[in-house]
Amino acid sequence: MAVYTNISQKELEELLKQYNLGNLINFEGISEGVENTNFKITTTANNFILTIFEKRVAVEELPFFVELMNHLSKKEYKCPIPISDIKGEHIIKIKNKLGIIVSFVNGNWVKKIENIHCKQLGNYLALLHLATKDFKLKRKNSMGNNNWGKIFNKFRSKKKDIYGYIFDEINKELSVLQKEWPRNLPSGVIHADLFQDNVFFENDKFSGIIDFYFACNDYYAYELAICLNAWCFESDQSFNTTKARLILNNYQNYRPLSNDEKNSFHILARGAALRFLLTRLNDIIFHPPDAIVRPKDPTEYLKILNFHRHIKSTKDYGLED
Amino acid sequence: MAVYTNISQKELEELLKQYNLGNLINFEGISEGVENTNFKITTTANNFILTIFEKRVAVEELPFFVELMNHLSKKEYKCPIPISDIKGEHIIKIKNKLGIIVSFVNGNWVKKIENIHCKQLGNYLALLHLATKDFKLKRKNSMGNNNWGKIFNKFRSKKKDIYGYIFDEINKELSVLQKEWPRNLPSGVIHADLFQDNVFFENDKFSGIIDFYFACNDYYAYELAICLNAWCFESDQSFNTTKARLILNNYQNYRPLSNDEKNSFHILARGAALRFLLTRLNDIIFHPPDAIVRPKDPTEYLKILNFHRHIKSTKDYGLED
Repeated sequence: MAVYTNISQKELEELLKQYNLGNLINFEGISEGVENTNFKITTTANNFILTIFEKRVAVEELPFFVELMNHLSKKEYKCPIPISDIKGEHIIKIKNKLGIIVSFVNGNWVKKIENIHCKQLGNYLALLHLATKDFKLKRKNSMGNNNWGKIFNKFRSKKKDIYGYIFDEINKELSVLQKEWPRNLPSGVIHADLFQDNVFFENDKFSGIIDFYFACNDYYAYELAICLNAWCFESDQSFNTTKARLILNNYQNYRPLSNDEKNSFHILARGAALRFLLTRLNDIIFHPPDAIVRPKDPTEYLKILNFHRHIKSTKDYGLED
Repeated sequence: MAVYTNISQKELEELLKQYNLGNLINFEGISEGVENTNFKITTTANNFILTIFEKRVAVEELPFFVELMNHLSKKEYKCPIPISDIKGEHIIKIKNKLGIIVSFVNGNWVKKIENIHCKQLGNYLALLHLATKDFKLKRKNSMGNNNWGKIFNKFRSKKKDIYGYIFDEINKELSVLQKEWPRNLPSGVIHADLFQDNVFFENDKFSGIIDFYFACNDYYAYELAICLNAWCFESDQSFNTTKARLILNNYQNYRPLSNDEKNSFHILARGAALRFLLTRLNDIIFHPPDAIVRPKDPTEYLKILNFHRHIKSTKDYGLED
């Protein structure tokens, strides 16, 4: 959520005239994240988030995200609630782009992941999957295993001198995953981007999940694999089994994993690593020069991928038989 | 939770020596509720609740309650967490009775039930039922339909001059319910006493459920019937369908009701009314003279029972076909 689109106080005041949200007191750009532009807006009524959609969000997919957040809020699941303007619209036009105002989730993401956070993440991730079982809209995973080849093709001929050795690894990995990717695992709506900056805590208590703009239908266990990659590797890419066990066991408090899910977990984890390796490379190669954001290091995910390639048993993840 | 057992500061300080909870700062008896004795204890560490078990709680059943609260807390369900003493025991002896110290749930019960509370109750009640699906211990409902006749027999020959007309109604109702009570509805752990003083909110946001000492295995829909009786009748015993619909529809966000459950809902609601009519009569007839608490009016539940006797369709409860 870097600031790609700038907005003036006057433009924001003009925008707020479309809403019943009181008068503008303050606003600031939020530099965290890498996808859309976000502003924290403080009005006389409350705090809100204005998101302006940048690349990777397709117009026709916006209703999926809006309805998903509405669906979750209705079920008391803690997440941003889309705010409608005086005409009843959630998606609005601003600076020739599309945007949305949502409620502000209290708390903040944790800079240092502790066991207490992993335990809660496990429980609330399972509840996210339960709460969306009856959600009617569907969205294909645009970053899913069927698209990895396409993403790779976009940049595989560029900056070979720097990243050629990674491209070789990606090539090998793509052909393995094409063969071994599991079929027919339990699936449904997943958040698909549950990194630590998208899970909020207040005094170490879970306070909500944000940034649903990658949410889609895919395997539930693939979501768990993304989380393990994002939450359980230390800064030197060593794997913290205690944290992994806390996420997996507490997830299973509400949704026990099937044997099929357990048996293919290492493949899902490799895929989850490859997915972020690919998009990080893509971002670093096509880095938009006017953004404040610094692209994330792709080699981190190469190391994570290599870890999963050497997994011998699901026990290595902290999963019991 | 009236104060039946008194305790001195010295006795409490003595008790706290068994725990790692810091030093006593303050304590006060809690006069709400009608079953056990409760004290709010403030120590240098935190706030806690000391419950001393009075009538109606059997010693052999205490592990069920302790483990249930532990099970729920583990799943992030907001409820009191049993505190163990330095020997690892949860249940302790005090004043020749048994007791337990549990964590303090922030917030308070709402004096005026609003739609916003009913909506949340529906969701969190369903989550309570989901979160206990894998709970291993079982406890029969000592206040369940098989015991209503027994409870009635304890007092039916007493104070006939005052309550004789109610006893006649109970007699009739018992024979109807014996015939029509549903069989084989979905069942599991229910709280069984979810009156408004057992559901806490903080700034109108659900903050937890307390007082699990009637929890048992019974029909899930029977729990909903108890809640409707407790939350949806105005002080003049008129039925608020908006509130009922909010509880029922939001419950079904997580656990849709089967047709069998819907079709027998009026019978469950009659049973739920009879159960509290019986125990309220029991309490008023055998009212312990040393308690601060004032027994609740039994005729309130006679009026609620009569309402359910005239229900023609589940739509009258706000349930859709």
